[in-house]
Amino acid sequence: MTRVRIDLFASLDGYTAAPDPAVDNPMGEDWGPLTAAYAATRTFRQKVFGDTTGAGTTGTDDAFAVAFFEGVGAEIMGAAMFGLHANPDDENWKGWWGDEPPFGCPVYVLTHSVPRPAIEMAGGTTFHFRSGAIDDVLAEASVAADGLDVRVGGGIRTAREFLRAGLVDELHVTIAPIVLGRGNRVWDDLRGLEHTHNVTTVVAESGTIHVTFTR
Amino acid sequence: MTRVRIDLFASLDGYTAAPDPAVDNPMGEDWGPLTAAYAATRTFRQKVFGDTTGAGTTGTDDAFAVAFFEGVGAEIMGAAMFGLHANPDDENWKGWWGDEPPFGCPVYVLTHSVPRPAIEMAGGTTFHFRSGAIDDVLAEASVAADGLDVRVGGGIRTAREFLRAGLVDELHVTIAPIVLGRGNRVWDDLRGLEHTHNVTTVVAESGTIHVTFTR
Repeated sequence: MTRVRIDLFASLDGYTAAPDPAVDNPMGEDWGPLTAAYAATRTFRQKVFGDTTGAGTTGTDDAFAVAFFEGVGAEIMGAAMFGLHANPDDENWKGWWGDEPPFGCPVYVLTHSVPRPAIEMAGGTTFHFRSGAIDDVLAEASVAADGLDVRVGGGIRTAREFLRAGLVDELHVTIAPIVLGRGNRVWDDLRGLEHTHNVTTVVAESGTIHVTFTR
Repeated sequence: MTRVRIDLFASLDGYTAAPDPAVDNPMGEDWGPLTAAYAATRTFRQKVFGDTTGAGTTGTDDAFAVAFFEGVGAEIMGAAMFGLHANPDDENWKGWWGDEPPFGCPVYVLTHSVPRPAIEMAGGTTFHFRSGAIDDVLAEASVAADGLDVRVGGGIRTAREFLRAGLVDELHVTIAPIVLGRGNRVWDDLRGLEHTHNVTTVVAESGTIHVTFTR
């Protein structure tokens, strides 16, 4: 059965890094400390950097990284996460995920603009642009996922929109033991999420806290 | 050596319960869910309710509860935590901690008003009222602690004032795996606390997260 999943990163004070409009540092300077434990895992190094040396951590953080990459058949993301706002007038701009984006499945980009034609990338990723209601896009993505899961990839406003609408079956938040004091708020408008979902918490060897809400 | 300690409760989204001005529910309605795991410990039941049956949890939450009650020789709290604002014109009002408050040591109440005379309570607690600078009050409390620790008991604004001033050696935050979405913010103005203190994280059997900053 297709499930809708979200993975987020948060600091102890409930912030995620605010993206930087500069294309060369799209995730902002707080993204590094926030995701350091994840970036150190063997799985991340393999999947994102193509590192086949086996280097990287192999504990609890890595187990979550493995789960992150498993079983996703379609992805949904906001326009900003694709990079649509960075070059709004360049029809040939293919986002900042590189020539071979790390999705390997259909990716539905939510936009309020007139949707562009689909862009087929190397590695099995095709970007589709949709301006409809989120449940309509989710229905289309669910069909495309063909029995696998749909991930709502972000950014944070898109993720919270799906959470508020009650469309999410599993929310995994990686909490770095740091205080950012600034950024985009992860948890706003989600009071009582523990009543609609079961919560589990675990601490990795790195000190990183993994919180999972499942229904 | 006297150390300065703070214990706080927070939700995943970084809130603590906002106190309610009504005297019959001073901690507000979110305080119960926020502190449920702590209130369930054997130590809390013994120390606060006088429950000598041995009932209550005995795991990680209880180990932190034991540590909470150990080695404190003096306490500092804000006027609101004492209850000074609840009955500002009643010179006989002894706060809302009951006839035998659970401190058993000198308690320094910070106030911007003209300090009242000290109030001696049953069980070894004496309330002193001070309107000076927080480092002066801390110096006095440190002497009174006589080699034991000084706890900054709260409320949250008082705690953050001591943290911002760099006066705190150990901050223990009990994070309940719930989303409150409202209340007083625990972590504001504390960006980078992980650079001045070492951080440890542990999850209790209850799913409660304990984060400790130590220097």
